[in-house]
Amino acid sequence: MKTKKIVLPDSELPRQWYNIVADMPNRPLPMLHPGTKEPVSKELMNRIFVEELVDQEFSTERWIDIPERVQDIYRIWRCTPLVRATELEKALGLSDGVKIYFKNESVSPAGSHKPNSAVPQAYYAAKQGLHRMTTETGGGQWGSAMSMAAEMFGLDLRVYMVKVSYNQKPYRKLMMNTWGADVFASPSDTTDAGRAALAADPNDGGSLGTAISEAVEMVLKNEDARYCLGSVMNHVSMHQTIIGEEVLRQFEMVGDYPDVVIGCFGGGSNFGGIAYPFLRENLTKGRKTRLIAAEPTSCPKLTRGEFQYDFGDLAGLTPLIPMYTLGHDFHPADIHAGGLRYHGAGTVASQLLRDGLFEAVDIDQVESLAAGVLFAKTEGIIPAPESTHAIRAAILEAERAMEEGVSKTIVFNLSGHGMIDLYAYELYLSGSLKNIALSDAEIAKTTSTLEKLIR
Amino acid sequence: MKTKKIVLPDSELPRQWYNIVADMPNRPLPMLHPGTKEPVSKELMNRIFVEELVDQEFSTERWIDIPERVQDIYRIWRCTPLVRATELEKALGLSDGVKIYFKNESVSPAGSHKPNSAVPQAYYAAKQGLHRMTTETGGGQWGSAMSMAAEMFGLDLRVYMVKVSYNQKPYRKLMMNTWGADVFASPSDTTDAGRAALAADPNDGGSLGTAISEAVEMVLKNEDARYCLGSVMNHVSMHQTIIGEEVLRQFEMVGDYPDVVIGCFGGGSNFGGIAYPFLRENLTKGRKTRLIAAEPTSCPKLTRGEFQYDFGDLAGLTPLIPMYTLGHDFHPADIHAGGLRYHGAGTVASQLLRDGLFEAVDIDQVESLAAGVLFAKTEGIIPAPESTHAIRAAILEAERAMEEGVSKTIVFNLSGHGMIDLYAYELYLSGSLKNIALSDAEIAKTTSTLEKLIR
Repeated sequence: MKTKKIVLPDSELPRQWYNIVADMPNRPLPMLHPGTKEPVSKELMNRIFVEELVDQEFSTERWIDIPERVQDIYRIWRCTPLVRATELEKALGLSDGVKIYFKNESVSPAGSHKPNSAVPQAYYAAKQGLHRMTTETGGGQWGSAMSMAAEMFGLDLRVYMVKVSYNQKPYRKLMMNTWGADVFASPSDTTDAGRAALAADPNDGGSLGTAISEAVEMVLKNEDARYCLGSVMNHVSMHQTIIGEEVLRQFEMVGDYPDVVIGCFGGGSNFGGIAYPFLRENLTKGRKTRLIAAEPTSCPKLTRGEFQYDFGDLAGLTPLIPMYTLGHDFHPADIHAGGLRYHGAGTVASQLLRDGLFEAVDIDQVESLAAGVLFAKTEGIIPAPESTHAIRAAILEAERAMEEGVSKTIVFNLSGHGMIDLYAYELYLSGSLKNIALSDAEIAKTTSTLEKLIR
Repeated sequence: MKTKKIVLPDSELPRQWYNIVADMPNRPLPMLHPGTKEPVSKELMNRIFVEELVDQEFSTERWIDIPERVQDIYRIWRCTPLVRATELEKALGLSDGVKIYFKNESVSPAGSHKPNSAVPQAYYAAKQGLHRMTTETGGGQWGSAMSMAAEMFGLDLRVYMVKVSYNQKPYRKLMMNTWGADVFASPSDTTDAGRAALAADPNDGGSLGTAISEAVEMVLKNEDARYCLGSVMNHVSMHQTIIGEEVLRQFEMVGDYPDVVIGCFGGGSNFGGIAYPFLRENLTKGRKTRLIAAEPTSCPKLTRGEFQYDFGDLAGLTPLIPMYTLGHDFHPADIHAGGLRYHGAGTVASQLLRDGLFEAVDIDQVESLAAGVLFAKTEGIIPAPESTHAIRAAILEAERAMEEGVSKTIVFNLSGHGMIDLYAYELYLSGSLKNIALSDAEIAKTTSTLEKLIR
């Protein structure tokens, strides 16, 4: 019997998150105040974010203890299984030496990896005595997870959801409502940023950039509220490293070790969550695992963006962030994978990519959904549209190994299931989904305004 | 640290299903041919069902080996976790001696316990050389699971889905389509039974009884097709006993043993799946575990039905089945828990209930969904509307123990999550859901025709 699934008992739950910043050859550049161009202070950040999360954002400590109460909640579903994709391997005709594993983050109550950060964010907010939080959500995975976590810690939550997703995914809204959150389609008429977007185009379907502007504006206007974010920031990726730390232990249990680690890439927390613990092993123990971020061709900030200072939102309310970006006014096409439509990449991931410590590939949406359907037909699980990019990248790596006649152990992060995102599969199955490749001119148009931000 | 979650490694997956028939003090009465009133033959059953499943249906063997290939598929998600509902316990203010556990069947690829039977059913069908299967589905959990399993074993599947669910749950249809199945709203115009129903009432929202008639008729008209069923039959409950066998091992691991085992009750397979292994321990080892089936007040066959011979479907195409029933022409109200709307209870469960070997309680739909929301807000998981009946029953048992000042260990089967069934929560949250209590006259009206079936 091949081992199908590697499970860890409750007692093996990692007790600390890992902070890649401690081991980076080059630390990330500071975020800057857009007016003064000086590094942003903790004090300014504390006005927007929960204090302990700001501390974590600036921290250079290698390990951060996971609070007991957060461990309690994690144990509802963690440790998650590491599964050998034996049925997929069979369908691909792989030889014994070419192995594909997936980390099954879809078994969480919200159906994705997002609760790994939502739970500690809600915990620290409650610990600070806060009662009101705001956030935004694209595909809906983060908004759902944060709704669950906020409810668990007695916080009121307001979610700005990108309108196109809000309309496509009524069940996402229902999930958030069931967990007690208020959900607004963004652009909304509840903020200046939303009203401005609607004035410019009443049919504006929204973007993460606009939704972030709305959520941040709401915090700036309400002294007792704080904003939280489901990706991009380093503290978020750090919370997600529990994924990779578990995977390390799980491979140890079966005496294997991955040659390739793959995650899809939106803001970077799902990728960082599985990859950074392996990057530490590369940096500190001479391991040579390849780390691959899989992004959509329609929002290719890693493969075609500029490394520059840029805003995190459309309205320019955030600090200037040093990152690979397509420009904060980049308006991504309405692709199926809403969680991957963000224009930028986060400071840590951007610096690591610049230093050549991981690779990025772009995957088009028809091929990624085809991989998702193959996965559903073999391993049973219908993957989140976001996760299908990682599956496609894993299949490409396996096929390459077969062509080269080499052994290879591949693991990807199944960041979530797609049960609430089935309209993407409907589009695919009906044949109405087309690939979206951007011309160089389109890329240049949105990135051309970047230079002046820092000058 | 309280143990939160008890997990079993792959190597602990049970290798055999348990057949309660071997240990029943009174075997179930035979099913009868409606014309001759003679016990139905295997030959007749073989025309409708897969042969090896018919053998299992008639089997009195205590243990049936689980085929290796089925074990392979089970291991994608099994063994499922047994979780201590510590957060729910806290919200209820339970003392240390009153404990609630849940078996988390929601982590399967289809989101419910249904694949436990769908996978072996598809396996045996493929082994018999069949290519075409038909089935019906109420809430959609079974149709989804069978679609997944059929695809895995290369079978074409046609699903008749109760129309009211079909319309309420577009995502269910999409799930089944993603796994390659053809889905028809029942009553449909593809069968005589469907056309007759539509002629009588063009707005007929359908019922499981009608959908079964359609699926069986399709098989009777197509020599190479076979029908499969997601509950009611003993072979289905038997496949589901893998749940209870795992729970037994899991309690052994932590040195605990349940005083009360609870499952919601539609056709009986989810209840039997968790309860029958504990019933065996009661019957053969003198254990005294109480086994509780939780049914909706709106479809109360166990608590208010008659024990009688009745058809399994509306049109009268099935054999006569000895069971607790509300009458095969009982048309259940459009309640939120589609999977619990069936008029009958299956021969084995019915005989066991008649012999006083388990208890039945009825739970109304507002209280069950309130329990579901409480569960979602504490343990995070949004339960399937069906499962909320079991949660409510578990809470009532815990509250009773507190009143009586006794210790009690309670376990219920969380048969699935509700992410595809959120409209039920929408109704509840909007306050538009009302309890449905049937008058004695309403019950008598549908059961009054039963007597003549066997005379």
